[in-house]
Amino acid sequence: MNPHFSPVALEKAYRLINHGPTVLVSARHDGVDNVMAAAWACALDFTPPKLTVVIDKNTRTRDLVEKSGRFLVQVPTVALAELTRAVGTTSLLDMPDKLERAGVAFFAVEGVDLPFVAGCSAWLACRVMPEPHIQATYDLFIGEVVGAWADDRVFRDGHWQFETAGPEWRSLHHIAGGHFYAIGAALDHDDFRSNRPKI
Amino acid sequence: MNPHFSPVALEKAYRLINHGPTVLVSARHDGVDNVMAAAWACALDFTPPKLTVVIDKNTRTRDLVEKSGRFLVQVPTVALAELTRAVGTTSLLDMPDKLERAGVAFFAVEGVDLPFVAGCSAWLACRVMPEPHIQATYDLFIGEVVGAWADDRVFRDGHWQFETAGPEWRSLHHIAGGHFYAIGAALDHDDFRSNRPKI
Repeated sequence: MNPHFSPVALEKAYRLINHGPTVLVSARHDGVDNVMAAAWACALDFTPPKLTVVIDKNTRTRDLVEKSGRFLVQVPTVALAELTRAVGTTSLLDMPDKLERAGVAFFAVEGVDLPFVAGCSAWLACRVMPEPHIQATYDLFIGEVVGAWADDRVFRDGHWQFETAGPEWRSLHHIAGGHFYAIGAALDHDDFRSNRPKI
Repeated sequence: MNPHFSPVALEKAYRLINHGPTVLVSARHDGVDNVMAAAWACALDFTPPKLTVVIDKNTRTRDLVEKSGRFLVQVPTVALAELTRAVGTTSLLDMPDKLERAGVAFFAVEGVDLPFVAGCSAWLACRVMPEPHIQATYDLFIGEVVGAWADDRVFRDGHWQFETAGPEWRSLHHIAGGHFYAIGAALDHDDFRSNRPKI
C-alpha cells in the first residue's frame, strides 16, 4: 500500500477536482472491474460533496455504474498520461485485455468495494444519486462523494502542492484527440496583474 | 470591436471548455446585465454542443438566466484574474456598482442579445434546456450552445494556442479562496512518459 495515500476531509473534497482536470472513472460489478477516462466531470456541491460525470452509453463502465450504484472518480497525473489516453480510447467491450495493455494497476482500500487506480493523485468514492431522466437523456450522472483521499506528496493540508511536487504530479486537462495540457503556475490574489482588457 | 473576435464552428465549441477552466457566466433580462464566476461548468455533449453550469439560487445571475432562458459562458484569462475573483465574490444584489468596481467592460455582438465580457479568450452563447427538477434540486443548468467565438490570438484553427500566446492569455483554474492555477504546458501523445506508478 502506498504510504502517501491519505484521507481528505469531505468538506474539502471539491478541491480535488475544482480546477477541472480530466479524470479516470472506475467501477466494479459482479466480478468485473473497469476504468475509463472522462474530461466531462465537475464538482456540483460542497456539503455533502457532489459531482457530475458524463458516462456514455457505449462504455462498459456505464453498465457497471448503473448496476452497482457506485463509482470512483480519480485524478490522473502527467506520469499517467499514456495510461489515461489508452483507457479513454479503448473499450473492454472489444478489447478484453484493455486494462493490462494500458498498464492499469488497481489497489484495494478496506471498506470500499471499488477498484482504485494506482498512481493517481486523488480519489473520490461516489454513490449514484438516481436521476433516471438525466442519466437516460444526457448520460449525466450525479454522485455523492462518500469518501475522498489524496496522495500527500501532491495534496496535503487541504491544498494542491503542484508548485513543489515534481512535474510528473501535475493534473491533465484534455482538449481533443490526445492533446492535453498539464496544470501550470499558481496564481494567488497578491500576484494578480491589474491589466484590463484593451478592446 | 476587437478584430480578433472570431467565430468557432459549433462542432468544435466543446474544446473551448474541455480543459476545465473557471468561466464567467453573464446574462441579461429586462435591462439588467450581470456576470458571475463559476468553476463548476463542464461540457456535456459534442453535437449539438451542450454544457452544464451550476448557478446558485443566491446570485442575481440566476434570476436573469431563468427569466431570459439564455446565458453566456466565457473563458477569462490570467489578465482577468482580479476581475474574475471580484465578480465571483461580490453580488449585484448587495453591491449595485459591482460591475464598475470589478472593471467589467461588456461589448455587443450583432444578433445575440447577451452581454459579452471584453478580454476573455472564448465565448459560448447558450439557451437553457429546461430541466426544472435539476435546476431546483442541484442549481444545475443545461445549456445548448447556439453560438461560439474565440479570440484568434489564443484559439484558432480549432485549437488553443497557449504555447505561443503570451502568458496573460492562459486560462484560470480556481481551487478555493482566490487561489488559481493557470493552464500549463502542452503534452502531446509523442511526449508521454512511459512512467508507470510505483506503488
